[in-house]
This record gives sequence, C-alpha cells and structure tokens, in this order.
Amino acid sequence: MSLLCVGSVAFDAIETPFGHTERIVGGAGSYISLAASYFTQEVQLVSVVGDDFPTTFIELLNSKGVDTQGLQVIQGQKSFFWKGRYHNDLNTRDTLVTELNVLADFDPRLPASYQRPDFLMLGNLAPAVQMKVIRQIPVRPRLVALDTMNFWMDTAMEELNEVIAKVDVLMINDEEARQFTRQHSLVKAARTILAQGLRYLVIKKGEHGALLFHGNEVFFAPALPLEDVFDPTGAGDSFAGGFMGYLASTRDIGFNNLKRAVIYGSAMASFCVERFGTERLAHIARQELDLRIRAFVELVSFDIALV
Amino acid sequence: MSLLCVGSVAFDAIETPFGHTERIVGGAGSYISLAASYFTQEVQLVSVVGDDFPTTFIELLNSKGVDTQGLQVIQGQKSFFWKGRYHNDLNTRDTLVTELNVLADFDPRLPASYQRPDFLMLGNLAPAVQMKVIRQIPVRPRLVALDTMNFWMDTAMEELNEVIAKVDVLMINDEEARQFTRQHSLVKAARTILAQGLRYLVIKKGEHGALLFHGNEVFFAPALPLEDVFDPTGAGDSFAGGFMGYLASTRDIGFNNLKRAVIYGSAMASFCVERFGTERLAHIARQELDLRIRAFVELVSFDIALV
Repeated sequence: MSLLCVGSVAFDAIETPFGHTERIVGGAGSYISLAASYFTQEVQLVSVVGDDFPTTFIELLNSKGVDTQGLQVIQGQKSFFWKGRYHNDLNTRDTLVTELNVLADFDPRLPASYQRPDFLMLGNLAPAVQMKVIRQIPVRPRLVALDTMNFWMDTAMEELNEVIAKVDVLMINDEEARQFTRQHSLVKAARTILAQGLRYLVIKKGEHGALLFHGNEVFFAPALPLEDVFDPTGAGDSFAGGFMGYLASTRDIGFNNLKRAVIYGSAMASFCVERFGTERLAHIARQELDLRIRAFVELVSFDIALV
Repeated sequence: MSLLCVGSVAFDAIETPFGHTERIVGGAGSYISLAASYFTQEVQLVSVVGDDFPTTFIELLNSKGVDTQGLQVIQGQKSFFWKGRYHNDLNTRDTLVTELNVLADFDPRLPASYQRPDFLMLGNLAPAVQMKVIRQIPVRPRLVALDTMNFWMDTAMEELNEVIAKVDVLMINDEEARQFTRQHSLVKAARTILAQGLRYLVIKKGEHGALLFHGNEVFFAPALPLEDVFDPTGAGDSFAGGFMGYLASTRDIGFNNLKRAVIYGSAMASFCVERFGTERLAHIARQELDLRIRAFVELVSFDIALV
C-alpha cells in the first residue's frame, strides 16, 4: 500500500565525539523515505530543496523505489542547513547553525498521484505545513502518523493541537511527552496524550528504546545495545520510516502489528546510528535486516511459567 | 537453597519531589533480605546496627523467615545514617548527610550456620568488608554476586578488583560500568568487565531497565512503566534480592534461568519504588507478584515470523 512521507530534505553538518562531517545529506524526509523503502515500493516523498542539492541523492531515492515527484527543487535558492554538535553521551546536542533557506517558504504541493495515500507519515516540520499536506488529501488515509518536537510545542502549540486532532499515531520523545503534558510519569503523560483522541502514542527514548501506548495497553521495545553509536542524527526519523513502511506493507493497523512495526522501526534506527548521516541506511541487505530482527527477538526473549 | 546476604542495615532520611521522611529503615541488607524472602525461606543476613535500631524491623525480617543471627547489635553506638535528596527526574540525587557510625568498624562475623551458603549476595559495602565475608566461607558457593558503586572505584579499586576475582555475577549501574572501563558503549564496557573472569554481568539502568551479559550473549529486561515512582531508594538492592532469592529457589544458574532472575529482580524493584523505604517491599501478596510478572511478560511480548 502507498505511504506518503513529508519532511525536510536538507544538508547537515555533524560533530560527534567520534568525528565530524562537512555538509552531508540529512533531513527527516530523507531518513523516513529511505527507511520505508526497505518495506514497500510505494513510497512518495513531499519536500523541498534548493538548486544546490545533489541529484545523486535524488537518484539514490529513485533507485530505492521512492517517488520524488513531490520533491520541489527551487532554482536560485539554497537547501535547509543544520549544524550541530553532540555531547559525549550522544543523548544531548547543541544546534550551532540553522539556515531555513527554502524551508522558510515551503508550500507543499501534492501531485495528483499523491492525493490518495493509504498511509501518511508527517515528519517533523512546522505544524502549519503539516496541516497543508493533510488538507490536500480528500480521503482520510488508513493511518496517519505525526512526528514533532519541543520547538513546535514552544512556538506553535495551537496549530500543533489542530494537527494532532487529525492523526492516529503521535511519535515524540520522552522529554517532549513530559513537556507536552507537564507530567513526569510517562504512564500518566501517555494517558493525557491519548485522551486527545489519538489511537496510538509512541514515546521514543533514544538508546533506551521506545514505548507504544494504546488504550490501557503498553508495549516496550529496547534499543539494540550497539558496539558503537556513531551518529544519532536521523535515528528517530529512521524509526518512523521503518515503522510506517512496515505497516504499509501489511495493511494491518491493530496493536499486535504496531508492536511489530516498533521492532522494525527500532531495527532501522539501529542501522542509522552506525554511520554518519544516511550512509548506512542507504545500504542494508535484506539478510542484515533479518539478522537484526532476530537479535531483537533474542534480546528480550525469556520463558517464565505464568501462574 | 540457602542465600547469605551481606549489606548495611541502617537509617535513611529521604527527600523526593513527592515528599520527605524522617529517619526510616533502609540499607542494602534490609532491601536485599526482604526481597529475597519472597522466594526462599533460607535467607541469612550479615550486618551491623547500633542500639538505636528498632527491634520491630528485625522482628519483621524474622517473620519473613530471614535469619538474623548474623546481625550484630553494638551497644552504645548508633546505626549507619544516610540522608539524601532526589532531583526532579529521580535519576540523580545529592547526599546531604552520611554518618558511618557502626559501619566504620564493621567486622562481619559469620555464625557457624552461615558458613556453607549455597548462594552469596555481597551488597554494596567496602570491598575489604566484602572480602572478610568471602574468607569465612570455606567452600565456594554455587553462585556469588557482588553489588558495588562508583565510590569504591574511586577509593578502593585494588581491593574491589580482588573481590571481583572471587565472584560470578557483578551488578553495577550504567554510569559505573562506564567509569570502571572508561568506555561509553555498554557493549564494549561489558566485554571488558566479563574479560576479568566474571560469568555474568548485570548493568542496571534504573527506570530504563537492566541488561544481563554472558559471554557474547545479552538479555534486556525493561523496568515496568509505573504511574508513580515515589522513592527510588533501594530499587537496586531489591533487584539484587529478588534476583538472588529467585535463583536460590531454583538451583539453576544457567543463562536462561538468570534471565528469569532478572525479571523477578525487576519486579521486586518495581514494588520497592512505589512507597518510601521498605514500606511496600514488606507487604507483597503472592498474587500481586504473579500479576506483576505477567505485566512484564506482556510488556515485551511480540510475535514476528523470523526468516
């Protein structure tokens, strides 16, 4: 089934304790669509870049089956650029440079072939832009997922709540869940958030895994303990891409299948962080993915006789 | 099978964002032996208190089947006292007061009936004191576990390494594992630590769960997402008590059974943090424990067809 992905396609420059990069390709839309492409051949990307953006990356997406008709290329302008530095623990980072460039006036336009997606993944962007995408889709998709961040909670809470009212799955990290609800307990925060009418809530905890909430049920997936986390950039977006790509490949939006989607999403995130940028995500063999899923199964398997 | 527990029995005064206590009973030995008492009736406690320590708590331990012959009561002296304040996230705390009192000269003496334990749990104490206990046990127990902390890594590394050479299972938290090995990756830290000759390593991550390492294998158990974490004091010790108590009840020290022990330990920790001090741990119904184990099973259960 088709999956429409919205999110930035951009340049990043990254410093981690293990090295640094010059301008490399990044952005939520890049990670989401790449990760999703391993699960379904009907991935459509809506985004915007400047004329400085490498056609080789667009060709890479196309070679993975990603439809880039909805990727606008604005002549005479530059692509979005973010530069950041991770602290030693890799859990926190400082933004050094943000240049909005083409993203400042991003007006998403869905080609006709994009307007009936089965699944919709709204990557982190201004809520007003996310809403513009929603408004161009006349029939509600089977499942709509939204990623957002604390910046929009601080600056555009009203618009954000309007978008949340239109989605089925919200994906945020633990600190954002706490900020959003002003509750420290993630169980209480989840209850508050689900009460807004969401069907599912994913709380991402970085190296500590992810929680999936649904009604009164909760599922936990660990992050795979890795030898080296090289660059955390894009891990959450890779998770979202794997999660929604898997769902789009199965048609099933029940709780048990969303648990599997969390595992596939976690697997894609675990690949992402092994190299800078999209480098690792661009080249995953099917057998590598199978082995990684097996590692997740083994990581949490135990056998207790229940009374 | 018998389980010998060594650890402080003491007073704590605790401040959390949710309230504060006057002097209440705490100490690693208290939490460990209480938690273990739910699994085996052969728990023996070695510790020391002053004459200010309430006999009611010792009677509580005895009523749970804990043998307190090895609990020295020093007349004319005061029990160990610790006062601490937890930060808002409950993951970090400041020590406000530490009065060693009887612990300063603690010379553990094992009654004859304690000298052939099947299992030995060395709670967090000065490594030299832990070694004195080991030296009084002529036949190596089936399994010896050690809890320690960064303070001893800073002040008594040589003695600590001597104790580690005598044990099968080391339990430390993630920051301690990193400090001990100077490696950020827990996978690499675990490999370094296991290379010292340990059979198992447990890395505790507080609200983020626990990892069990054995050779090249790893098992992860989440912490149960709780409505309220009221007071984290004693969670690690309750984990250790549940872990070793369960093992002592089964005789099996293979990897699969240690995974179960991690789950039982995590369950005891999840009870502990629901109230101040030992309050919750003192009163757990068998049915409550069964329900909690079921909650752990459900939390991580998913069903993926492996290729």
